[in-house]
Amino acid sequence: MGSSHPDGFVVAVLGATGLVGRTMITVLEERSFPVRKLVALAASSGDRTIRFKGQEVPVEQVRPESFAGVDIALFSAGGSTSLMYAPEAAARGCAVIDNSSAWRMDPAVPLVVSQVNPSALLDHDGIIANPNCSTMQLVPLLKALEDAAGLRRVVVATYQSVSGAGGKAVQDLQQQRETLVRGGQPISTQFPHAVVSSPIPAIDVFLSDGSTKEESKVVHESRKILGMPSLKIAATAVRVPVERSHSEAVHVELSQPLTPQEARKAFAAMPGVTVLDDPAGHLYPLAASSVGSDEIFVGRVRSDQSVEHGIAFWVVSDNVRKGAATNAVQIAELLVEMDLVHGARHVV
Amino acid sequence: MGSSHPDGFVVAVLGATGLVGRTMITVLEERSFPVRKLVALAASSGDRTIRFKGQEVPVEQVRPESFAGVDIALFSAGGSTSLMYAPEAAARGCAVIDNSSAWRMDPAVPLVVSQVNPSALLDHDGIIANPNCSTMQLVPLLKALEDAAGLRRVVVATYQSVSGAGGKAVQDLQQQRETLVRGGQPISTQFPHAVVSSPIPAIDVFLSDGSTKEESKVVHESRKILGMPSLKIAATAVRVPVERSHSEAVHVELSQPLTPQEARKAFAAMPGVTVLDDPAGHLYPLAASSVGSDEIFVGRVRSDQSVEHGIAFWVVSDNVRKGAATNAVQIAELLVEMDLVHGARHVV
Repeated sequence: MGSSHPDGFVVAVLGATGLVGRTMITVLEERSFPVRKLVALAASSGDRTIRFKGQEVPVEQVRPESFAGVDIALFSAGGSTSLMYAPEAAARGCAVIDNSSAWRMDPAVPLVVSQVNPSALLDHDGIIANPNCSTMQLVPLLKALEDAAGLRRVVVATYQSVSGAGGKAVQDLQQQRETLVRGGQPISTQFPHAVVSSPIPAIDVFLSDGSTKEESKVVHESRKILGMPSLKIAATAVRVPVERSHSEAVHVELSQPLTPQEARKAFAAMPGVTVLDDPAGHLYPLAASSVGSDEIFVGRVRSDQSVEHGIAFWVVSDNVRKGAATNAVQIAELLVEMDLVHGARHVV
Repeated sequence: MGSSHPDGFVVAVLGATGLVGRTMITVLEERSFPVRKLVALAASSGDRTIRFKGQEVPVEQVRPESFAGVDIALFSAGGSTSLMYAPEAAARGCAVIDNSSAWRMDPAVPLVVSQVNPSALLDHDGIIANPNCSTMQLVPLLKALEDAAGLRRVVVATYQSVSGAGGKAVQDLQQQRETLVRGGQPISTQFPHAVVSSPIPAIDVFLSDGSTKEESKVVHESRKILGMPSLKIAATAVRVPVERSHSEAVHVELSQPLTPQEARKAFAAMPGVTVLDDPAGHLYPLAASSVGSDEIFVGRVRSDQSVEHGIAFWVVSDNVRKGAATNAVQIAELLVEMDLVHGARHVV
């Protein structure tokens, strides 16, 4: 029905004033997504505006009726808001792309990384889930390795920036830095401990098996996206005192032999992946260098000699962009390309 | 010959003005090591003094003759200085405990973690090596697991503080923080990149197989200390913007079943290890909380479901103390207890 939207789409962003929501709006503009009208929504309006294509767009308080006439809605407003409004929007014919964890593991909801499993969108019934940021940057590389040599087991340790916890967490880290520079004792308003002086091995809540929900997301979301329900994968998820972009140390056991050079080639062939791997020139992916990019950067590709067919690598991506906002917009682009925007009900 | 030193020992510290050297002197005093006379040495004297037991001790420029009459020397002055002076000291009957990497893999040199392989000291011939900091805090836990259920494979990702690179690196991070707080672009004088905004997956030089020397140290030193020359172990070593204490995410495959509760019990039974593991109370090891302690802290102990008999954990220790200075002093204590201080040649 792309052809039935010659003037573009009515696009809503829920959570328009948050870190991810603002970035969604920026990315829509940067990528020239065909927006006929932007509807900026938030849990509370607060008399704010956001800027889109040189215009000030008022931020409206979200209501079920906000989605009448909306073709595509990008949600980044937390799980409970999403649980409440995504069905309301979908019932009105709007395609919801949701960045919360609320719908990701629902068997009826596609969970999509744009370059890995776009065909999952074919089954969408109005709600599509955007994966967790730490999963997002990992799965394209796992897909490349699965196709090249078969995945046997994956162990991941994450180095996640504070922006994964939102804009307030970024300010909190900045405050902690200032306190340290002044010679004071840093405290955190956003984390259980002061992350400025300790990596914190606890992201999201703890589950009964001793893992955290963040670690569990990496396991279960990766399995769902890759369509490998029994993939052997384990994670330790850690917050580090860095503002933006997540890094991950990954050790993979493959079914068949694969040299580091072959692995680099497989990675480079994956859309949206850039290989940065020249140790002699101090070149490897770095959080700060990846900020603002939509690419997934991989380097330190080497054999893991501790296991047969072992490969290790280091992957970095901007968690707010590819890890959240950009992939949501890329899903919207796929919906348009694949003619899967059903169109708001009242115009059908 | 403990009894032949009723008044204590002449102890030299080479690198007495560096971060580890100063801490060695502090730890000697804290632990009431029987020091009859302290000889403070440095590559250059520079008219400095260090404080020991309320006295100002002049720092002398090191010469081969500096070790005449010295019973025990603690070295923390870099590999090339160690290669030059350790044989000179040993030839004079001095027991050298060296914190550089120069001697660690020499088959004739014991590499000792005090609570893991003290008996290796029996074979010492004047030079004893102190392990690398990232290896030091890991090996006691691996030893506990090996004894409890057999090690099959170990994967480690490190979160290493900048103090592992010395006192100047600590100042460098502080400078980078100040620059960020002022709104500037941080640069580093000590690392290839600004660590304040990026975890850096490169510690020490790169080897031809794509690993770093730091990663290689974890592999080869662990094998030597545990006496398991074919132990399957892989590491990714990463510098993070934290001043002090190293953290590590460890995933271990065991030969036999071991519950997390049994693993905690095995860890707690290892001297110098403290289990901190109450997720509900936000209790797990943290870099900042471990600073100044000689303990190795372990927590986040849980099953790794991705492999048969898998256990994962998080280990933190003060890299300057147990990771360097304290273990060196503990080796000196063992030499005394085990009557292995041969005594300076000129008094024999």
